[in-house]
Amino acid sequence: MTDVLRTIGRLLQAPEHHLGEAQHAQARTARRSFMGKALAMGAGVAAGGVAAAQNAAGDDAILTLPAHSKTLGQPVAAQPYGQPSKWEGNVLRRESPGLTRVRQASVSFTPLQGLFGIITPSGLHFERHHQGWHDIDPSQHRLMINGLVREPRVFTMDDLMRLPSVSRIHFIECGANTGAEWGNVALPTVQYTHGMLACSEYTGVLLSTLLDMCGIDRKRARFVLAEGADGSSMTRTIAIERALDDVIVAWGQNGEMLRPENGYPLRLVVPGVQGVSWVKYLRRIEVGDQPWDTKDETIHYVDLMPDGQHRQYTSIQECKSVITTPSGGQTLLDRGYYNISGLAWSGRGRIKRVDVSTDGGRNWRTARIEGPVQNKALTRFNIDWVWDGSNAVLQSRAIDDSGYVQPKINQLRAVRGTRSIYHNNAIQSWQVSPNGEVSNVQVS
Amino acid sequence: MTDVLRTIGRLLQAPEHHLGEAQHAQARTARRSFMGKALAMGAGVAAGGVAAAQNAAGDDAILTLPAHSKTLGQPVAAQPYGQPSKWEGNVLRRESPGLTRVRQASVSFTPLQGLFGIITPSGLHFERHHQGWHDIDPSQHRLMINGLVREPRVFTMDDLMRLPSVSRIHFIECGANTGAEWGNVALPTVQYTHGMLACSEYTGVLLSTLLDMCGIDRKRARFVLAEGADGSSMTRTIAIERALDDVIVAWGQNGEMLRPENGYPLRLVVPGVQGVSWVKYLRRIEVGDQPWDTKDETIHYVDLMPDGQHRQYTSIQECKSVITTPSGGQTLLDRGYYNISGLAWSGRGRIKRVDVSTDGGRNWRTARIEGPVQNKALTRFNIDWVWDGSNAVLQSRAIDDSGYVQPKINQLRAVRGTRSIYHNNAIQSWQVSPNGEVSNVQVS
Repeated sequence: MTDVLRTIGRLLQAPEHHLGEAQHAQARTARRSFMGKALAMGAGVAAGGVAAAQNAAGDDAILTLPAHSKTLGQPVAAQPYGQPSKWEGNVLRRESPGLTRVRQASVSFTPLQGLFGIITPSGLHFERHHQGWHDIDPSQHRLMINGLVREPRVFTMDDLMRLPSVSRIHFIECGANTGAEWGNVALPTVQYTHGMLACSEYTGVLLSTLLDMCGIDRKRARFVLAEGADGSSMTRTIAIERALDDVIVAWGQNGEMLRPENGYPLRLVVPGVQGVSWVKYLRRIEVGDQPWDTKDETIHYVDLMPDGQHRQYTSIQECKSVITTPSGGQTLLDRGYYNISGLAWSGRGRIKRVDVSTDGGRNWRTARIEGPVQNKALTRFNIDWVWDGSNAVLQSRAIDDSGYVQPKINQLRAVRGTRSIYHNNAIQSWQVSPNGEVSNVQVS
Repeated sequence: MTDVLRTIGRLLQAPEHHLGEAQHAQARTARRSFMGKALAMGAGVAAGGVAAAQNAAGDDAILTLPAHSKTLGQPVAAQPYGQPSKWEGNVLRRESPGLTRVRQASVSFTPLQGLFGIITPSGLHFERHHQGWHDIDPSQHRLMINGLVREPRVFTMDDLMRLPSVSRIHFIECGANTGAEWGNVALPTVQYTHGMLACSEYTGVLLSTLLDMCGIDRKRARFVLAEGADGSSMTRTIAIERALDDVIVAWGQNGEMLRPENGYPLRLVVPGVQGVSWVKYLRRIEVGDQPWDTKDETIHYVDLMPDGQHRQYTSIQECKSVITTPSGGQTLLDRGYYNISGLAWSGRGRIKRVDVSTDGGRNWRTARIEGPVQNKALTRFNIDWVWDGSNAVLQSRAIDDSGYVQPKINQLRAVRGTRSIYHNNAIQSWQVSPNGEVSNVQVS
């Protein structure tokens, strides 16, 4: 720990964070100049006292009292609904232009490189729309439950919101997250490689409660179909065992009502399963005795195997992890101590352990896990690292409580080939070059 | 559970939620009319099939396909930083006008009646400022540590953010929360009675890590002083045992950087302790051997006892709970099933149990606890209730893992008198009248 401040450095949270390229260069120069001064001061710093501490900062920022220490600030409720600092204006969801023909059927990515902990701010939650998003009047919205039930019903939002509710933290990951890596397309930042990922506290009524209320035919029911109210009429088949287990018909996300882009006023939460099954603007649940094989589940979100067959309904997001800091596009401006931080998750349960390598997988150390470790939720890990200025390859490897170990990309390819788009949970590698630049590399 | 939908009703989340007074009356009439129709339909509903289900809804909302099911919606990243639905425009922090002479030294309250789970959306986090809030340039912000340390230091934000970090969920409550109840002032809603309360996931470096780095003099150090950079120069004394335990120097809140009103870019997180000690815009930690007795801790946030003495440094927020739904200002429009929901917390540890009474404390039932139950964090509880249309008084009583039981207001008054402003953790009572209106009452 005493090493830490011997090499004061400047870690950029993200290429978009705080500094532009020109300021970046200035900061680098200023810091190097300061480093020389700091070393020259030597024992003087250790003499103690405020003046010495001020000098040790290498700048005048604390010698003059800033305006905000001498003036009246903004009043309370100046923002009845608060917003991020103006200095964080570059921490945004970002689209990958041209990914789809129209932007209403595209994706925006969560800026994982600038985030902390396990809760994803709702304003930065990734988007994947199929025909755009709407802001639906909740007083007009209805949920119908029909099919193999004794008593089909239609619920208003108020009907639902007076029912017994649960609140649980779960991750959501698009089945196509990290898909570009199948074809060796090394996207530059963790926002684009892993940013179709988020974690929220959801509140709603268990689907099992609603199905019980409608008198589900437990002898014949084998599947449910979930249907959304947007123009895409998104439909997904879900096995009845899952539907009666931990699936939530949710209205709350991170303490408040869902956001319109995330399905306001009602979405299905299907813990551990790929995002497309978390049907937004949920308007209908049908109970049936066989899968529906709708367009969205036969053409899309299937895995093209080496023998030319399509594997269908592989919906569980297997155990996976990624280092978010340092990550692609960031630059380490000095040698010395860094806190390597990242996220781990498993669609099958809880994260048991995360190992981290800084030499491309030859040696592994076990990371610190931050609580709470929740079922089918993101888990934050941290580990100490002192960078000596040479080439390094950073990797993380998650293990869940089923004993499953996150695979290398070559292990996945040996089974799945290279023509998949979906369900890539391979170990991610970030290379740190001697000049401090971090980039996306594939290590066999 | 089969009772639930036999009495379909409309539960308003809050007086401010969705409906105005006129619409409120309309809804009441419409629902009563529908209730008659629904009862008249009787067995017809049970016949099954979509048409019957549609009829059972009692309205035409699902018979005509709404515009959002036929049109292209908004594109991805239409909002690079997302916002709540326009239909939630009344779920806001609210000021109590005239509470203080200037709005820069006032309070805005969290709308607990409209929230779910345990995470408070950062945009709805209550505010208590002493000289207004600022949006400080993080590249200019510094944290100094001085006093009884071997090596005083000044940290930039980047210095701090590369250090080993922790992420933890903690509640924050203003010491004056629920203060009006001391004097029998029954504020109308839970937003005003208990809304100086929030819970977030915080990320930062442990204060103990920083004190170790500066070589704290463990033999002489007994207290630290935390100082903020806003115009109020807020200062608070904290005992060294606590400073070296779980206090965090935090930059992250709910996954992103702190909001300006909550201390961006740096605030102290002092788990379990009243909000005023969570110094915002943190610029200095001084280590000393006695309390500082600064203005903010001798004139304010002290308890005036019956004998005329002031009790000082009573900073721990004792075990407390409140029912948020149904709560003051809400109206139950029909008899039947309701999910009573609320929050419990303790500055001394974890919530062990929450009991709920619907008859003013004569009978108690144990509520369901939603996980995760975290140390010094809000805990959500829920319990079933069928309202028979008569007078009811709803109360909750929390018990923490130290065995402490939340007291009645009269038990507190027996020790503390009636002249306090701060540290009221008494059981809250909401009266439900036969007309469905919920109001704030005191029950001895």
